[in-house]
Amino acid sequence: MTAPEKIPSDLVADWSTLHRVFIRPEDEKSRQTLVKYMEQILFGLHDFLNTHVGVTEAIPLATLAESYTDTLIHPDPEKKLADVIKDIINQIAPRAVNVASPYFIGHMTSAIPFFMVHLKAIAAALNQNLIKLETSKVLSVLEKQVLAKMHRMIYNKPPEFYDSHVQNVDTSLGLFTNGGTTANITALWVARNLCLPPTAHFSGVEKDGMAAAMKAHDLERLVVLVSERGHFSLKKAGGILGIGNRNIIAVDVDENHQVDMTELVRLVEKFSRDKKTKIAAMVGIAGTTETGSIDPLPRMAALCKKHRIHFHVDAAWGGPVLLSEKYSNLLAGIQEADSVTIDCHKQFYMPMSAGMVYFKDPKALDQIAYHAGYVNRKGSVDLGIKTLEGSREASSLILDSALKIMGSRGYGLMIDHGIETTRLFAKKIKARAHFHLVTDPVLNILTYRAVPAHLQQHLNTDISSSRRQHLDACLDKINTNLQRVQREAGKSFVSRTCLKIRPGDSHKAVVLRSVIMNPYTTGKILDQILDEQEAILDNLDILDHPAPNIWR
Amino acid sequence: MTAPEKIPSDLVADWSTLHRVFIRPEDEKSRQTLVKYMEQILFGLHDFLNTHVGVTEAIPLATLAESYTDTLIHPDPEKKLADVIKDIINQIAPRAVNVASPYFIGHMTSAIPFFMVHLKAIAAALNQNLIKLETSKVLSVLEKQVLAKMHRMIYNKPPEFYDSHVQNVDTSLGLFTNGGTTANITALWVARNLCLPPTAHFSGVEKDGMAAAMKAHDLERLVVLVSERGHFSLKKAGGILGIGNRNIIAVDVDENHQVDMTELVRLVEKFSRDKKTKIAAMVGIAGTTETGSIDPLPRMAALCKKHRIHFHVDAAWGGPVLLSEKYSNLLAGIQEADSVTIDCHKQFYMPMSAGMVYFKDPKALDQIAYHAGYVNRKGSVDLGIKTLEGSREASSLILDSALKIMGSRGYGLMIDHGIETTRLFAKKIKARAHFHLVTDPVLNILTYRAVPAHLQQHLNTDISSSRRQHLDACLDKINTNLQRVQREAGKSFVSRTCLKIRPGDSHKAVVLRSVIMNPYTTGKILDQILDEQEAILDNLDILDHPAPNIWR
Repeated sequence: MTAPEKIPSDLVADWSTLHRVFIRPEDEKSRQTLVKYMEQILFGLHDFLNTHVGVTEAIPLATLAESYTDTLIHPDPEKKLADVIKDIINQIAPRAVNVASPYFIGHMTSAIPFFMVHLKAIAAALNQNLIKLETSKVLSVLEKQVLAKMHRMIYNKPPEFYDSHVQNVDTSLGLFTNGGTTANITALWVARNLCLPPTAHFSGVEKDGMAAAMKAHDLERLVVLVSERGHFSLKKAGGILGIGNRNIIAVDVDENHQVDMTELVRLVEKFSRDKKTKIAAMVGIAGTTETGSIDPLPRMAALCKKHRIHFHVDAAWGGPVLLSEKYSNLLAGIQEADSVTIDCHKQFYMPMSAGMVYFKDPKALDQIAYHAGYVNRKGSVDLGIKTLEGSREASSLILDSALKIMGSRGYGLMIDHGIETTRLFAKKIKARAHFHLVTDPVLNILTYRAVPAHLQQHLNTDISSSRRQHLDACLDKINTNLQRVQREAGKSFVSRTCLKIRPGDSHKAVVLRSVIMNPYTTGKILDQILDEQEAILDNLDILDHPAPNIWR
Repeated sequence: MTAPEKIPSDLVADWSTLHRVFIRPEDEKSRQTLVKYMEQILFGLHDFLNTHVGVTEAIPLATLAESYTDTLIHPDPEKKLADVIKDIINQIAPRAVNVASPYFIGHMTSAIPFFMVHLKAIAAALNQNLIKLETSKVLSVLEKQVLAKMHRMIYNKPPEFYDSHVQNVDTSLGLFTNGGTTANITALWVARNLCLPPTAHFSGVEKDGMAAAMKAHDLERLVVLVSERGHFSLKKAGGILGIGNRNIIAVDVDENHQVDMTELVRLVEKFSRDKKTKIAAMVGIAGTTETGSIDPLPRMAALCKKHRIHFHVDAAWGGPVLLSEKYSNLLAGIQEADSVTIDCHKQFYMPMSAGMVYFKDPKALDQIAYHAGYVNRKGSVDLGIKTLEGSREASSLILDSALKIMGSRGYGLMIDHGIETTRLFAKKIKARAHFHLVTDPVLNILTYRAVPAHLQQHLNTDISSSRRQHLDACLDKINTNLQRVQREAGKSFVSRTCLKIRPGDSHKAVVLRSVIMNPYTTGKILDQILDEQEAILDNLDILDHPAPNIWR
């Protein structure tokens, strides 16, 4: 790709080229060419991936890296659009990751409906900036409507509530972000500000900062409680917000990988007695990243209510389960949350990158309002007044259109398929001699690990601690290598993580992790993935010395 | 749009519909339909806007808002993709803002090259997630190459520097963000952490938080210095980072709207004497949002070096000027910055939303590294280790492709056109009897205001303070209403902001603000915009009582 190429003489940057690039092609021929390019993007790309690759081409990372070391921006154009698209289809795509493959069941990224590419293209063609009404107009109003629809899905307040807030310029039911991370940061940002309000000689933490706030409130420590399954964005939020990431307290989980309520109550009571410590927020998880487990939201909500703690629910993954008629009850209690994160690019099947965060109290976002003379004027509909980010694309238009095309039932069917196919996968794993199911699926995520049949008997028997350590190390090595070899072969993909398998374990075991959200992932495909893993296991002894520069 | 519609009976969410939506259409007819939709997006949208609207349809906000009050997600699909696209083209687009119009010269959003829609569509079709190698592979490697190209554009270190860092998994030259706001927050986040390092009994601000950090370093106040022209994202960064937004000190500007160096030196020396205050960063602006002015970067860099202060340059707007052979010297000194923000969706003409931030020291981003068992493993190429955001789309692929299609000269020509057309506009404003140029353009931004000819004589004469106040109020009202009326008529658009016109003014005057980046904006169009404004001025007396629910 970086081999020296002869630059054709027509690739010169001049004003007429620029006009060709910007011009709205009025003649039929130019239009047809641009449409043909789009056709290649829609189908050339897809056909190529279907014919030539499974998940990704088997090529070492080091080899790839060697091809991308040209650090100069060339003065004259290097390629025409047609060639750029051709190169992306033929050279980039096979070495990227075909997340749309039904054999890709390892991460929270998957196939998206075809129409999503159309919707993303239309958002780009309109190129509205939702920071302000002056660069978005009707889309700001439409965004407020979508926010109200989602709020209603979560909180289901009376219709009058929505009538009075849907187009109210003084209140905000939620906001769009770039993803779950900025959504979680925003929720904890609001929670931090709410618990360190202004006093007689202090203007509030947003204005005066954390050190002044802690002094004014006579505190030494602000903490956030979340189970050890909490997403790492919460720790990051602690760091960025000046709370300190060690103050995002990882609470133990029980045997169902839900937060251990006894431990949680103990911690809340302990911190409540300590007058120098304040709990800024408690986070319940509706679909943990690693196991898909859902915390006991109603009990957590009651605990927060009793102790007046901000209750945030991270439903980045699980939120859309609310659209399933069969499984929405799994999220019961979410309507008690003070704030809720939901991702669009996860189970709303939108392209990267879009997330959302909602607040029960339509005035909560006043905590983070910013104005400026040129934008976000007071009393305006400018949606950028209360967002972490500034300029933003019209993700709300994509979600709004997708809801119209799919209906809640369409989304519900996708959710149901994922949950039920994952249950089927769990059965298949249990039926195999060399595998051990680690976490039973609640949603569409499960973990398991390869445990060769002759070692299975030791799993639950009482063996000496040194033999246990040896067994743990051996299994970790097997599973790490198994996952790497399968990934680099490029036919299918499961991910891996480290978990304490039972409460109280000191060792975090390497486990394989599967996320099933692709509607084309079938039982037959899951069998093939397990077959491939068994075949790899048979040959794993040759892998004692993995190649350097492996992906990790 | 919300009038009750009869739902056609084929709009039912069932499994076969879902398959039709997700399915890769193998038959020629379905493919042709999807291509036709894309053609409508590319050309139907554009033709409609060109034929039916200038900048936006003249419709009151209240009327628009009334149409968007349906807060229920419908169980069954409401519309087919074809109808969604038709509605967007016919009903949404005309009531959105046609930012691609050459008559839209008010904000930092403009026409984008046609190929950008193709590139955005290809990024969506690939749907890679740059948080980790396992969902992006070659794109992570490609992103590192683009980051090196941009770093080299800014810092121009020796080739060996780039050879050793371009694909180094242990170092980072910069990162992609959702926009300038998250880029600025990231830069100040790193600066905050660098100036509050671990001590014997303190683990660093990221881990222990701001209150502990200030105590450990025996400080009472952390401040950031930036001219009063600084973007409001810097104040927001102060709030979110726990520094306190009142500690983002707005330094006076001189008559060129650059930071007043005398005042800046005075403040640095004052804070340096105060052992309880530390300067976390100084921010120089390369293209202020309001006036396009560029701070004296070399002098600021020298001051920072002398006092060991982190020097951040906010070049969100001005960064791409580095690609202009004629004008890159305007940004001299930027290579001394410790960190630099540049937006992709501004003068790199990319669609919403993408920004970047670069660091001189390839280890600086270690300050904000986060790992997790399932992603961002230590020593991996996972780019999400050192980003504020989590999941991210492949904006780097779009920028990389655009650089190949345009070449640096192509971008340079766009920059030159913007600067030179803005200079022409300044001349035209000066030549008109009823206008007064407020800030001469350095880049492609200028401000001016309507000052009816009979009031011009009072601008620079000595009048009593009460008469001055009356004049100010009168001119503010004229310009506010002028901007509103022109905006709501929908034929053309300039923005407005409030500025102290001369250093030392107590009054912030309402001024009109023009940003010229559309290559189709010509002198003739600028004449028409001024003609329209003069016509509005003639009739302004009828506007003493603007309608309620105006946009503000």
